Amino acid sequence: MSYRVPRGTFDILPEEVNIWHYIERQVQEICRRYRYREVRTPLFEHTELFVRGVGDTTDIVEKEMYTFNDRGDRSLTLRPEGTAGVVRSFVEHKMYGQSLPSKLYYFGPMFRYERPQAGRNRQFHQFGIEVFGSHDPAIDVEVIAVGMDLFKSLGLKEVEVEINSVATPEIRQNYFEKLIEYFTPYQEELAKDARERLHRNPMRILDSKDPRTKEIAADAPSILDFLDEECLSYFNQVKRYLDLLEIPYRVNDRLVRGLDYYTHTAFEFVVDIPGAQASTIGGGGRYNGLVQEIGGPEMPGVGFGLGIERIILACKAQGVELPIHDQLDCFIVTIGEEAKLHSIQLLHDLRQAGLACERDYLDRKVKGQMKAADRENARFVVILGEEELERKEINVKSLETGEQEQIPLDTVVDYLMKKTLK
Amino acid sequence: MSYRVPRGTFDILPEEVNIWHYIERQVQEICRRYRYREVRTPLFEHTELFVRGVGDTTDIVEKEMYTFNDRGDRSLTLRPEGTAGVVRSFVEHKMYGQSLPSKLYYFGPMFRYERPQAGRNRQFHQFGIEVFGSHDPAIDVEVIAVGMDLFKSLGLKEVEVEINSVATPEIRQNYFEKLIEYFTPYQEELAKDARERLHRNPMRILDSKDPRTKEIAADAPSILDFLDEECLSYFNQVKRYLDLLEIPYRVNDRLVRGLDYYTHTAFEFVVDIPGAQASTIGGGGRYNGLVQEIGGPEMPGVGFGLGIERIILACKAQGVELPIHDQLDCFIVTIGEEAKLHSIQLLHDLRQAGLACERDYLDRKVKGQMKAADRENARFVVILGEEELERKEINVKSLETGEQEQIPLDTVVDYLMKKTLK
Repeated sequence: MSYRVPRGTFDILPEEVNIWHYIERQVQEICRRYRYREVRTPLFEHTELFVRGVGDTTDIVEKEMYTFNDRGDRSLTLRPEGTAGVVRSFVEHKMYGQSLPSKLYYFGPMFRYERPQAGRNRQFHQFGIEVFGSHDPAIDVEVIAVGMDLFKSLGLKEVEVEINSVATPEIRQNYFEKLIEYFTPYQEELAKDARERLHRNPMRILDSKDPRTKEIAADAPSILDFLDEECLSYFNQVKRYLDLLEIPYRVNDRLVRGLDYYTHTAFEFVVDIPGAQASTIGGGGRYNGLVQEIGGPEMPGVGFGLGIERIILACKAQGVELPIHDQLDCFIVTIGEEAKLHSIQLLHDLRQAGLACERDYLDRKVKGQMKAADRENARFVVILGEEELERKEINVKSLETGEQEQIPLDTVVDYLMKKTLK
Repeated sequence: MSYRVPRGTFDILPEEVNIWHYIERQVQEICRRYRYREVRTPLFEHTELFVRGVGDTTDIVEKEMYTFNDRGDRSLTLRPEGTAGVVRSFVEHKMYGQSLPSKLYYFGPMFRYERPQAGRNRQFHQFGIEVFGSHDPAIDVEVIAVGMDLFKSLGLKEVEVEINSVATPEIRQNYFEKLIEYFTPYQEELAKDARERLHRNPMRILDSKDPRTKEIAADAPSILDFLDEECLSYFNQVKRYLDLLEIPYRVNDRLVRGLDYYTHTAFEFVVDIPGAQASTIGGGGRYNGLVQEIGGPEMPGVGFGLGIERIILACKAQGVELPIHDQLDCFIVTIGEEAKLHSIQLLHDLRQAGLACERDYLDRKVKGQMKAADRENARFVVILGEEELERKEINVKSLETGEQEQIPLDTVVDYLMKKTLK
């Protein structure tokens, strides 16, 4: 019998893993500069946390969660997103009692039962950051800057920030009524899911993908006309700081985000891909009610979540080459049993010195070993036979230049360290 | 309502994450030298894969798996160990057709429903390596050397390898009969689980934790007396290579490992902890039947799995200090609105230059800002007020030496880059 990877999931194979390592290093480096510290929460949580933290009218909670009972009959759910777990951890460990603002990040797998398509998998990966404890609009912009810095460090071009204010729950209530008023006459023409949302969450109609619904929504009232003075001033400060840092942005008053808990700032990162639709590679916003919802004190929050698979797809579509280090410094070719035995020690010494080294493990003849060295793109080949052992000299060949040298056996580690600049 | 982390799982908090980063970097560096390449398989697989790949008489499959049906009614299981998924990936992607041996590693979370205790969690993490396609005993020793190198790089001392040969399935069948013969007269005295295993898998009685069962098992026949010439020669070569690399080891003929598919070499890494029981932090062995079992060609394999939480516990118990980098290079203190606005730009420039920087986001007074800089252990404080902006000069203070300097505003990035040696 033969087995396959579960539908909608995939293996990250060695050729591809190097890209992930590179992205992870960039994430760590940028978070170091901006002082975000990683927190790793378990991959499953009590189901109730997501129902509460993500919102029970969302697609995620209604249709997409991997929920199961453990052997102790607890309802657990594989995390569909990263924020709820981080907020739970923040509250459980009383981090709100430490110095504020608290700046955290996460990076790892998330799970949603969705119809698989390019850039949408059932196990996917997100990098996200969260700041707790500050109302300062400069923090909203810092959060956006972290995302932009990551894209820049990867060489991803043409990324624009779309930004909106979703105001406060009170203002939104008023706006909801106006939206219901506006959409009601068109009720029969709306797409099914939009019609269902009309009374529960009419803002979600604004980001419908259905063409007729989009047409109707185009003339719906704008939330920006409903902002009070405080919301407007907040929004203006965010825009001013974006200008200051020369971050390219565009106000999009149809931008609502999928989650229920946003207040004030909502944003998305949109990348332009030549010859294709612009693609959203992440988004976030401010959520001033979530920490309290999860059992903590009243405390503002702001953050984003980025889709790593989408970022990689965008990099590839733009032809960005991510630097990948996978160099074999040295391959040891052996002739005869004595040399083979000796090579085990030599290989070990070279690796201890920091060199990436390999030898044959398939009892290949010399020619087969040379071929293996070639195929693996070794920079140097060391040839070790009985004769060499007797003379205590060894033949080192550069596969880059073709040059060969005879050197004393006990200097080969130093010699190769110098030659490979380790 | 307030939420808690699911029982038997835990958050890795920022203070602790640095240790994980350090371990991950060491793993990547050692695997680079030894030419093991990472493969990342999904966190769940079809349940049948583990039943087949781990063995249906094992504790893992019988009692410890997180199994659930997805919304498409497939039976999925959170991976309880790493080898089965890697073998599945190796077979599915036909890596056996690429250059051999294939040397792979994995690092990540695993899930077992066990009674939680120190070093045993329901979500835990393993680093494992697998080599496919070589019968060479030198590869068994290379695998062991990778583990020992990791321990050394972490500063973990007193790690010893326990090693045994579990021969081949044919020889084991013969040995099983002798074991059953030996244990049958003691049947009533054996622990319940040992009694249950007597006919299914009598070797597992040898690693029972029950005192009376242990006593009885002490005089049971040794598998080493059953080895044929080939198995004996293989075992002797492994020991010879271990001697050559000066890896400390001890033959333990009671060592059987929990999984069914081992052949020839079985080993464990055991660490001595002052004032406590020696602790097993990982183990592995050779499995010559597994690739075929999962639908691939007949192909030998050898590998190990290490428990990261157990390694960290051992490091702490030995008082090992892992190097942790969490330095704040500079904190910007601002006085007045104009300076605050300017600080957003300056902060951004310093971070672009690679410095870890912070400012206040809570509208603190100067004194509060200075306190925050202190609490965060900033190396330098930059003080920016209206006066400084007017004079285009800035005050830089080293919190390490107490020294202060006035420098031109537009040289502060260069100045701090030099001072912090970035």
